Amino acid sequence: MPKLRPRAAVDIPSAKVDLATLTPDLATFLGKAAYLELAIFENLSRVVRTAPSTEAKSALSQVAGFALLKHQGLTAELARHGDEAADAMAPFVLEIDRFQRMTEGNDWFESVTSCYLTAGFLDDFLVRLAAGLPGAAGARVVEILEADSGESTIVAELLSAIEENPRLGARLAMWGRRLVGDTMLLARWMLRPSDNHDSDEAQIEPVFTELIAAHTRRMNALGL
Amino acid sequence: MPKLRPRAAVDIPSAKVDLATLTPDLATFLGKAAYLELAIFENLSRVVRTAPSTEAKSALSQVAGFALLKHQGLTAELARHGDEAADAMAPFVLEIDRFQRMTEGNDWFESVTSCYLTAGFLDDFLVRLAAGLPGAAGARVVEILEADSGESTIVAELLSAIEENPRLGARLAMWGRRLVGDTMLLARWMLRPSDNHDSDEAQIEPVFTELIAAHTRRMNALGL
Repeated sequence: MPKLRPRAAVDIPSAKVDLATLTPDLATFLGKAAYLELAIFENLSRVVRTAPSTEAKSALSQVAGFALLKHQGLTAELARHGDEAADAMAPFVLEIDRFQRMTEGNDWFESVTSCYLTAGFLDDFLVRLAAGLPGAAGARVVEILEADSGESTIVAELLSAIEENPRLGARLAMWGRRLVGDTMLLARWMLRPSDNHDSDEAQIEPVFTELIAAHTRRMNALGL
Repeated sequence: MPKLRPRAAVDIPSAKVDLATLTPDLATFLGKAAYLELAIFENLSRVVRTAPSTEAKSALSQVAGFALLKHQGLTAELARHGDEAADAMAPFVLEIDRFQRMTEGNDWFESVTSCYLTAGFLDDFLVRLAAGLPGAAGARVVEILEADSGESTIVAELLSAIEENPRLGARLAMWGRRLVGDTMLLARWMLRPSDNHDSDEAQIEPVFTELIAAHTRRMNALGL
């Protein structure tokens, strides 16, 4: 695959372009985002359980904790608006569970790579989408989603394994590219349905261009 | 099984009796306790993944977060003393993993019951054992271990299932009694080895009597 030079400091969540007119209503946004963060937490807790070393287990448990904090922050926001978290998430369980199964990977390293790449992409995406949420709630949601997600910890775990085993690197490079399609589909599913497809696409395209650049940057950080 | 009347407000972690002279050195205590909390987190995150409802999934993810906070608090305490968490935990991994396998349960309800009963017993035990840790570190460790562990959330999840299904209650009552033996053995393994077995036993016995009473109280809370 063509390698891009690592870029100096690409600020991903700077929201140069956003998706404000495609943002769903607050309860839908929060229900989808809260269940997604719960799924990310589950993926991470699975790699904690199956980690090949105590060091990796403890380090990744912190990363799982970050996803759990995001889930809890979003369910607290639901509660603030009088919504029961489970009810708000229920309509979106099947679709997100399906995404989770398709991206969970065939071994520990693929699973960790998924946690890193899909969560990174979708957190970035949700930050852009949150631009269309009403006032103070929107600002709180952005703060929750922009909080640390432990990417540097995951990169450190994967890098040492890839450096020891170039064939693993080649496999994860393939896997990382395969994840983009399913992740973009899930992101699109989170948009508010609209009648004007041309204007929607004009708004979506530059955002996805940026998110794919950020995905490439995450791959570069692993030398992939 | 004989049912005890529910007691009014038994304060479990009040440390009327403690185990100060059987407390291991700080690094050993923290290594064992930190890995135990990580194992408890793993058990809880497994029941989150396999939860029968979105409501249970979200509620139990909070309980998993409490165990993770304890793990993180204890590894922070290790770091404060210049110890690498993974190194401090490594010698104790096999024994705690073995305990985890023996107590994980045969289905979701047994697993949740284990999370509730074994974590409750061992947190109580560690609080008593922490009485022998040096000064400020001991006080911090007690605070970490006495923090909320989400017992009321687990009780609520289990109670509704047991009320709907008395046979489940009978099975969990058996399971809850079976857990005591293995849990007490793990607790004993956490003690500092000593030469004076008679005086050790004199110190251990009243503590275990209290911890078993607290175990019974936890069973009572489920109507078992």
